[in-house]
Amino acid sequence: MAIIVHGAGFSTCTQRTLTTLAELNVNDYKLEFVDMMKGVHKSPEFLKKQPFGQIPVLEDGDIQIFESRAIIRYLAEKFEGQGTPLLGKTVKDKALVSQWLEVESQNYNPPTAQIVYQRVFSSMFGSSCNEDVVTEQVAKLEKVLDVYEAHLSNNKYLAGDFFSLADLSHLPYTYLLVNAAGKSDLITSRPHVSAWWNDISSRPTFQKVLGMNEFNKKE
Amino acid sequence: MAIIVHGAGFSTCTQRTLTTLAELNVNDYKLEFVDMMKGVHKSPEFLKKQPFGQIPVLEDGDIQIFESRAIIRYLAEKFEGQGTPLLGKTVKDKALVSQWLEVESQNYNPPTAQIVYQRVFSSMFGSSCNEDVVTEQVAKLEKVLDVYEAHLSNNKYLAGDFFSLADLSHLPYTYLLVNAAGKSDLITSRPHVSAWWNDISSRPTFQKVLGMNEFNKKE
Ligand SMILES: N[C@@H](CCC(=O)N[C@@H](CS)C(=O)NCC(=O)O)C(=O)O
Ligand SMILES: N[C@@H](CCC(=O)N[C@@H](CS)C(=O)NCC(=O)O)C(=O)O
Repeated sequence: MAIIVHGAGFSTCTQRTLTTLAELNVNDYKLEFVDMMKGVHKSPEFLKKQPFGQIPVLEDGDIQIFESRAIIRYLAEKFEGQGTPLLGKTVKDKALVSQWLEVESQNYNPPTAQIVYQRVFSSMFGSSCNEDVVTEQVAKLEKVLDVYEAHLSNNKYLAGDFFSLADLSHLPYTYLLVNAAGKSDLITSRPHVSAWWNDISSRPTFQKVLGMNEFNKKE
Repeated sequence: MAIIVHGAGFSTCTQRTLTTLAELNVNDYKLEFVDMMKGVHKSPEFLKKQPFGQIPVLEDGDIQIFESRAIIRYLAEKFEGQGTPLLGKTVKDKALVSQWLEVESQNYNPPTAQIVYQRVFSSMFGSSCNEDVVTEQVAKLEKVLDVYEAHLSNNKYLAGDFFSLADLSHLPYTYLLVNAAGKSDLITSRPHVSAWWNDISSRPTFQKVLGMNEFNKKE
């Protein structure tokens, strides 16, 4: 039975899942489009799958999980040995992958998501960009990126010399930060962060996932 | 070589680590006190261990990790088969533990930590409680807790019928929410959340960790 991803190609958290599937060479899955513009994610039927009314949700036989970072860990464990080894090979590498995945979730994503929300999504939801929030969150993100710059000057990737789930998890929101929120300077002003970003964002798997964006297709 | 936890007994994220060690029956460790009042966590030496200047950090031989949720996963994997099985036994259970651990980190902790910060910690840092922030974050947390109430009406614990890392991760901040931030009504007004809270917070392991709080000892 094929895996089903309930989500949308333009959604960052869905992209996290789809990029993981691509890195693991899993092609036997179906992306079941959840039309957020029509409010499908808040329908009683969808709330049975995801009680917070958010995408994505993964179905794999009798296993059904939500929360994108739980989904990508589940997939990387299930398909360990196939495609890119996203979790690391040794106990030490695995610990570092978990650590940097948490840094993404705790330190990097909150300011990044807020900047992207203000600059990219707020107008879609009928409000306008609050530049005070942008300024405040940019200051927080600068501090996080300074740590990344120092760390990436000694490490090719976050968990060491291999591309992992930790790097992957940064892709969708950083792509919007750079290409839609007008904040590419945060990356380009830091040479090691910039080299890392160019490397990970040019992976064919992520490029393929960007091509699955429903909005791009309609244009 | 014994495990070293760099942290402080009163710190919520350290408590997450210490409770996990207790559940796993690991007694051979040392809590190395990091004196945040003296700014030790921002010293150049400590920043080499934790570049964001936060506690806890775990050292286990040549493995050194920070981020409490990465640490507790590392410990639960290393000591799988000893003490409480915190990760679940089947692939499905493990997926649900990961999912609810992410719900804690993404949905539950942000509003809870902000309420606790305003009501408990802000005065320690020379500012005062911003009740507007409290009101806003309480509204967010109420929605999350409504989902928990429905879920816990069908499940004894978050991931099913067994106590796991997902439940454990809620302990330190919820303890402060209930006992120091004046928001116990958020829990007691929801019968299934309340039963769950009474159950998990009375575990001897967590009670033992509460007794390791340096402030309590000084009194
Ligand atoms: N922590 C969740 C967040 C999911 C999330 O924010 N999804 C967005 C789309 S990228 C969504 O469904 N937003 C609608 C909403 O929050 O109401 C995850 O990582 O899966
Ligand atoms: N996401 C981190 C957060 C750690 C954290 O916030 N630790 C607090 C003590 S509970 C701290 O060190 N605060 C000092 C600071 O942030 O400067 C984790 O889970 O380990």
